[in-house]
Amino acid sequence: MSDHNATVTMYWTSAEARDWVTFGSLLAADVRYDLPQTRERIQGRDSYLRFNREYPSDWHLTVDQVLADGDRAVSRISVTVDGETQPAVTFFDFDDRGRIAVITDFWPEPYQPPAGREHLVERY
Amino acid sequence: MSDHNATVTMYWTSAEARDWVTFGSLLAADVRYDLPQTRERIQGRDSYLRFNREYPSDWHLTVDQVLADGDRAVSRISVTVDGETQPAVTFFDFDDRGRIAVITDFWPEPYQPPAGREHLVERY
Repeated sequence: MSDHNATVTMYWTSAEARDWVTFGSLLAADVRYDLPQTRERIQGRDSYLRFNREYPSDWHLTVDQVLADGDRAVSRISVTVDGETQPAVTFFDFDDRGRIAVITDFWPEPYQPPAGREHLVERY
Repeated sequence: MSDHNATVTMYWTSAEARDWVTFGSLLAADVRYDLPQTRERIQGRDSYLRFNREYPSDWHLTVDQVLADGDRAVSRISVTVDGETQPAVTFFDFDDRGRIAVITDFWPEPYQPPAGREHLVERY
């Protein structure tokens, strides 16, 4: 496991444990959190920690996979809230001290398949 | 650039060029394409090539980043259709001959941010 892989794994493990001290230790002071789907951005470790601490609902997560390459990594997790499980895909950029500098988070929601490709697809 | 990074880059370059011969040469014969959001699955190179050839609209794409790690890779691309640009995140699993064996595709769509975090976020 690479260092960045280990950092991403610890990021999710500490989030699941609500261990915000460990979680915060992985972040650069000027960490930036981007949500491209809503075009929301959070700047700085304090705000980002507060965002996570205050996040509503009794969410739980499991890590499906982590890929690390150079100064970047990406994870796929499954998040369960009130019995519903949804994937999340998160990209991480690291600074030269190995701390998380940029987090880009995607929450792909279910949608109805377009018509016209039923001859090629099955549903699972 | 790793071999798998190069394969993913060629996958997108040949898709953009509608060069289905090159595109198909990157795929295992029993390639599987999964769309977790719609729970659609396509099995086999012939069906998957037809799915891409038949895909409606005059779509164009640019590659934002590719990460490769072991026998897996992931890409972020921007797809433009009718002047609208949307991200797509695609995970790739490779077989031991370096061909793409599993493709898992996410299309994260815009959504309205939940209320209650305006004190922490800015919009961009």
